[in-house]
Amino acid sequence: MGLKILGAKCALVCNPNFDILSNGGVLFKEGEILEVGDYAKLCDKHPKAKARFYKNALLMPALVNPHIHFEFAGQKQSFAYGSFESWLDSVMSERSQVLKRAQAHGQRAIQEQLLQGVASVGAISSYGLDRNILQESPLRVVFFDELIGASADIAPAFEAFSARHALSQAGKSPKFTPAIAIHAPYSVHKDLAKKVLDTHKSPVVSVHFLESQAELDFLKGRGGYFANFYAKHGLTAPHYASPLEFLDLFKGQNLLLVHAMFATKAHLEHAKNIANPTIITCPRSNRLLSGALLNLKHPSAVGLKTALATDGKSSNNNTLFLEELRTALFAFNTPLLEVLPKILLGATLHASQALGLKGGSLQAGFLADFAVFNFNAKADLQGVLHWLLHAHRVLDLYIQGELSGFGV
Amino acid sequence: MGLKILGAKCALVCNPNFDILSNGGVLFKEGEILEVGDYAKLCDKHPKAKARFYKNALLMPALVNPHIHFEFAGQKQSFAYGSFESWLDSVMSERSQVLKRAQAHGQRAIQEQLLQGVASVGAISSYGLDRNILQESPLRVVFFDELIGASADIAPAFEAFSARHALSQAGKSPKFTPAIAIHAPYSVHKDLAKKVLDTHKSPVVSVHFLESQAELDFLKGRGGYFANFYAKHGLTAPHYASPLEFLDLFKGQNLLLVHAMFATKAHLEHAKNIANPTIITCPRSNRLLSGALLNLKHPSAVGLKTALATDGKSSNNNTLFLEELRTALFAFNTPLLEVLPKILLGATLHASQALGLKGGSLQAGFLADFAVFNFNAKADLQGVLHWLLHAHRVLDLYIQGELSGFGV
Repeated sequence: MGLKILGAKCALVCNPNFDILSNGGVLFKEGEILEVGDYAKLCDKHPKAKARFYKNALLMPALVNPHIHFEFAGQKQSFAYGSFESWLDSVMSERSQVLKRAQAHGQRAIQEQLLQGVASVGAISSYGLDRNILQESPLRVVFFDELIGASADIAPAFEAFSARHALSQAGKSPKFTPAIAIHAPYSVHKDLAKKVLDTHKSPVVSVHFLESQAELDFLKGRGGYFANFYAKHGLTAPHYASPLEFLDLFKGQNLLLVHAMFATKAHLEHAKNIANPTIITCPRSNRLLSGALLNLKHPSAVGLKTALATDGKSSNNNTLFLEELRTALFAFNTPLLEVLPKILLGATLHASQALGLKGGSLQAGFLADFAVFNFNAKADLQGVLHWLLHAHRVLDLYIQGELSGFGV
Repeated sequence: MGLKILGAKCALVCNPNFDILSNGGVLFKEGEILEVGDYAKLCDKHPKAKARFYKNALLMPALVNPHIHFEFAGQKQSFAYGSFESWLDSVMSERSQVLKRAQAHGQRAIQEQLLQGVASVGAISSYGLDRNILQESPLRVVFFDELIGASADIAPAFEAFSARHALSQAGKSPKFTPAIAIHAPYSVHKDLAKKVLDTHKSPVVSVHFLESQAELDFLKGRGGYFANFYAKHGLTAPHYASPLEFLDLFKGQNLLLVHAMFATKAHLEHAKNIANPTIITCPRSNRLLSGALLNLKHPSAVGLKTALATDGKSSNNNTLFLEELRTALFAFNTPLLEVLPKILLGATLHASQALGLKGGSLQAGFLADFAVFNFNAKADLQGVLHWLLHAHRVLDLYIQGELSGFGV
């Protein structure tokens, strides 16, 4: 595989400065970006490189969706929306029904991600039903085997998890990274979490954290909705002295703190002090379950980065990432042209960093994963805004430097 | 045309109580609803009526989009978003370009409305370019000839407006109602507005009102963005002593107050005291231009109803009404299951009332305009929520009691 150059009318670098290049290009080789700059100059400098210029197009790092549950891709109207409590009740009663034909639905969701320009995903796998379809897909996957189990007798859950995780480890490849998700403070016994995290090293760890007022109430005083939840379902309640004790499980970890709308400044600061966290926000899921969106100022006030994700269809009307980003654009209470770069960095650079990957940006040394979209505006922030308002489908998607043959 | 009955698994009445009927039906004749209730009972009671039951469907009053600019349907990325000021600057410089092929684009926008289940529109016509295509369309149209002109020499603008409005009056029909729109306080001389409103009686009047901080600044103290706007464009500045003086133009009128995000409680109360106003909110347009959404509590605090609209593509990424309603669902900061009925009433009953029509609800004496959508959930609020989250296209649309032959 030799040198290649791609260029486009508008190149969205997705670096921290959010540079937008007119007639920009990338030089890459063997899945890695070597140089970024003016397309014509790159071609002059590297005359032997195989070059392609997209005339009316936007070239950007492929999108990164860091939190999605493919196993629940078949959910449509089985789960209740409008309150976290009624949603969780409906999950408890309807889950097994929803998981039927999980692979077929998951396949479609994978195809959908690719068509939206997503090359990398953080896939939360509760049962391992999505492992094979993801391994066989063109996607770059951080595959989070999810730990759940609140019983004080931790041995069975530990064994079952270890068996699942071994299957994932066996499939490890440059494009498939096994990792661990700890479901949530309300569903995982701390000794079980500790044993799993001590036994199996994970490059990154994903946790649902303070997605609801109910969860906060329970962690603070063991009251509220969760006070009766466990007895009702014949389960044991896990026990953490506080949200901080839960966070202490992840000392020194690269951590995806998913949701966190009900996290206080003290929680976020503690997370930052003891670990390397990124906040993952799923706007539509949050609105449908807990009613509220994340206040983007909260993570940034303590110096934490935020990435965006669709979550699963278990808590969303679809997993179209571009639609999620547009909804975020309309729904976040931050000036439009200020939030636009935050949203796009949250779907590229910050999401990739959160997953422990070196992608999501057109920079030397980064992954050669690119998305190309139709683009008819000027190569500036206003043009990028108009692009996002109308983007529905990728034109070409490159993963690991190769045009992805997923039949766009 | 004899008696007809339509029924469906779920009938969304869109009355103030927001009733949802399981296996509900409507009896209607000659474009008017006669009776609403249980489908089977209606059939028993009226055995000669021609009856049709939609098994996996939702039957509701056809949607009503009370504020749309069809003439600007070709706008895609010519106008700047992110601030009202830069948007208005771009409108001034790019408008003539955008209006090219207005009819062809308008035709597509009409088709789009019908496909979304919209039977009635409030069409704001700045130039009369959309008059014929709307008259020839299946849509029920309140056609607002829009008045604009700030010059103290009001005669030319008055003559031009009267000539345009005469053409609309000549086309008046049961489905085409000519009406008047006064563009905005910053663009219409008060003597011109008075003369037009005194000369031509209008069943309802539509005005853009306090869409931006800039407009409020200008009305309060003639400062801000508009202080230099007129000289820059060779125009005369209109003069109102305050927002209240502008509102006084509309004493006794049925009034559509469009946008009003920057209206104070005093403004809204004054409007309510002197006229019969409905607030029309266009969430995506508002977010794209002025950055902010309407706080739904403000109109309801003074007892005003709110209706929803798409506005034109001049200030939106598309005019898909169902997508607008979904964005509203995600973006409004009101509990989800509380805001859902408000949104749906705002797109049916309240929108129809605002336009001076007797539609938007399944009630005896109301217009027999119906939309039928695929529906696979339970006939309850949760089911309706899931429907709105997934609805993309009407199954059948009835206007004036007849199945609309627009080739769905």
